[in-house]
Amino acid sequence: MSLIVQKYGGTSVGTPERIINVARKIIETRDAGNQVIAVVSAMAGVTNRLIELAEQVTGEDKYPTEREMDVLLATGEQTTIALTAMALNALGAKAVSLTGAQAGIETDGVHTKARISNISPAGVHALLDEGNIVILAGFQGKTVDGKITTLGRGGSDLTAIAMAAAVDADLCQIFTDVDGVYTCDPRVVPEAKKIEEISYDELLEMASSGTKVMQSRSVEFAKKFGVRFEVRSSLNNNPGTLVREETMSMESVVIRGVSLERAQAKVTIAGVRDLPGTAGKIFGAVAAANILVDMIVQNVSKTGITDISFTVHKDDVTKAEAALRPVLSELGEGVTLEAQDGIAKLSVVGIGMRSHSGVAAEMFKALSGAGINIEMISTSEIKITVTVAEDQIDEAAKVTHAAFGLAE
Amino acid sequence: MSLIVQKYGGTSVGTPERIINVARKIIETRDAGNQVIAVVSAMAGVTNRLIELAEQVTGEDKYPTEREMDVLLATGEQTTIALTAMALNALGAKAVSLTGAQAGIETDGVHTKARISNISPAGVHALLDEGNIVILAGFQGKTVDGKITTLGRGGSDLTAIAMAAAVDADLCQIFTDVDGVYTCDPRVVPEAKKIEEISYDELLEMASSGTKVMQSRSVEFAKKFGVRFEVRSSLNNNPGTLVREETMSMESVVIRGVSLERAQAKVTIAGVRDLPGTAGKIFGAVAAANILVDMIVQNVSKTGITDISFTVHKDDVTKAEAALRPVLSELGEGVTLEAQDGIAKLSVVGIGMRSHSGVAAEMFKALSGAGINIEMISTSEIKITVTVAEDQIDEAAKVTHAAFGLAE
Repeated sequence: MSLIVQKYGGTSVGTPERIINVARKIIETRDAGNQVIAVVSAMAGVTNRLIELAEQVTGEDKYPTEREMDVLLATGEQTTIALTAMALNALGAKAVSLTGAQAGIETDGVHTKARISNISPAGVHALLDEGNIVILAGFQGKTVDGKITTLGRGGSDLTAIAMAAAVDADLCQIFTDVDGVYTCDPRVVPEAKKIEEISYDELLEMASSGTKVMQSRSVEFAKKFGVRFEVRSSLNNNPGTLVREETMSMESVVIRGVSLERAQAKVTIAGVRDLPGTAGKIFGAVAAANILVDMIVQNVSKTGITDISFTVHKDDVTKAEAALRPVLSELGEGVTLEAQDGIAKLSVVGIGMRSHSGVAAEMFKALSGAGINIEMISTSEIKITVTVAEDQIDEAAKVTHAAFGLAE
Repeated sequence: MSLIVQKYGGTSVGTPERIINVARKIIETRDAGNQVIAVVSAMAGVTNRLIELAEQVTGEDKYPTEREMDVLLATGEQTTIALTAMALNALGAKAVSLTGAQAGIETDGVHTKARISNISPAGVHALLDEGNIVILAGFQGKTVDGKITTLGRGGSDLTAIAMAAAVDADLCQIFTDVDGVYTCDPRVVPEAKKIEEISYDELLEMASSGTKVMQSRSVEFAKKFGVRFEVRSSLNNNPGTLVREETMSMESVVIRGVSLERAQAKVTIAGVRDLPGTAGKIFGAVAAANILVDMIVQNVSKTGITDISFTVHKDDVTKAEAALRPVLSELGEGVTLEAQDGIAKLSVVGIGMRSHSGVAAEMFKALSGAGINIEMISTSEIKITVTVAEDQIDEAAKVTHAAFGLAE
């Protein structure tokens, strides 16, 4: 008998009917001879309604206490676990619900974005051994002294993966509204294929470059504890994508997938003297304004004068300019600031590129062959990212996808 | 510094605006130099919506698992505690929320109608000593092994009174939508007056005879642990009614109040032989049909043949007849069953009647003086109840109220 952890997101449990469907899926899994722990999120829309209530009692000019926000938001998942367990029981299965606290999920005390510090799975094991299906509230835990905490964005995935690690599950299935991870966004590249297996690092790089399947922290957690998980659809029975530690055979594929991210802007600070502390000043100012910087490119020239460029989301570009203006004078005379939106990022990701040379060249050749100009280039060990004009991103994705034979 | 436990019901916290009002009332209490524990119910309507969801996931022909019903319903109060604590914090007060489990409210394992078995108030005391207002979820607790339980109807009142006992509070205030306990229903007897002080026993007898201020179990709990509590309105600052152990001075008042209950029916089984087991057969059959019987009157005649009458709510009368038909033949030949609705109950309650004779006579005189016929009579140590025709109940209440000088 295998032990499987499943996770169903807010859309999958968004209505009573959908909860019944999820219950049926869980029963199918059990009937195939498995023990099942199912992690569920709050019903779609519930969390937003709770946040609205919080804003109404606190007033617009104030923030709700984070401790109480966690108490409030935790009711969302608690509602779903009860309803899912009821649905299972009504269908003749034996199921019990557990809140994060009841399941022994201990976290630090950082409310609204707590980190899991420990899981005591004895209670869960006991319930499974008694023949129960365990329905576990995602997204939540408790501190050592019993305060309710929530794990922040993507918290339910994290609950599933952490619990899978704690109980030493044979498999963790993340049910979502997509079929798995694709070689590229099928809306852009219709011939994109579902990836059967992908390594943690590849998924992390794809996630950070625009492929929004899961939050990176859940993948990082899975990597750290070696939890294999499958991303698959709750709407059909198709096999999904298995995410796991890398294998030798994975390296034979040079590029696993192509990610794209639109609505980017590029900020360039030109004429900067290449002195220690310059980059610190620039990115310190940007970080202080709570702006997420993505690619950073610097080309040191022989003259000791350099340009520093970085990308931000286009909605942040005005804020970034405002944050940097006061810093310019500190950087010396003749320093200029230029911002430009209407750009997009294209990345190719694959652990195979470690052992294959010429990947960058092949990508650049494909793009230039399509008449697409490359603006910035940045590379990591298993990823190459370029920026192009936003109106060329779809074409760029298509030719790159084709160049690496990803549809075959 | 006094320690005050307050309880606010679902209507008082029914909207974000009302929650803010409750927060203001709590701050007023604190500013008067008190430590405050406020017990809150689920926002009005929330519990019904949750029950509806439960019915939708289980289907009409099945009952939701009671264990899971408790997990579900407990979210209602958990939502309110978080919102109330947020509102207090936004108003500049220092408040923390506690679920029943977090507050150390331990119950037995009878889901949906658990009984409180123990309260460990150390955590609550620690929070109060740190200068916090404690917002406590009513209606809920946990078992020794951590299961979530709910206390059933009137559970939030019970939480308040039990917590007041556990922390040895100086006062417990039950805020509700009425101003307190009245000598009679003011809609029937406009000159009815608010009662300043009433004993537990009197309130219990009034509650059981139609004065619906609180569930009896909460009053019984308060009596058992000697918790003084005040029933007062959350809509104004008028003093309410203090409920407490009886005092000598209370006895100087013969009658504390007049209760009335409409929509009653009388069921009479006539021609019964007065043999052991007869009443058992009759009321066994009625109880098996889940019908609540109220007054029971039997007059043993010298011939050994007797009539047994009892009252039920008029909605139950058909069910009662159906339950009794099969029993009639067992009771011997000539036994008849007769049911009659359109009757109402009138009760006078007062610990003073223990030491005053002639109370019954005075009541009967007042009623007969108004031309009102009495059908059934039943008495307890501190209560006299009669049934009259329902269309005469208002007049009966008025003349009785006047006869005992309750408006003075």
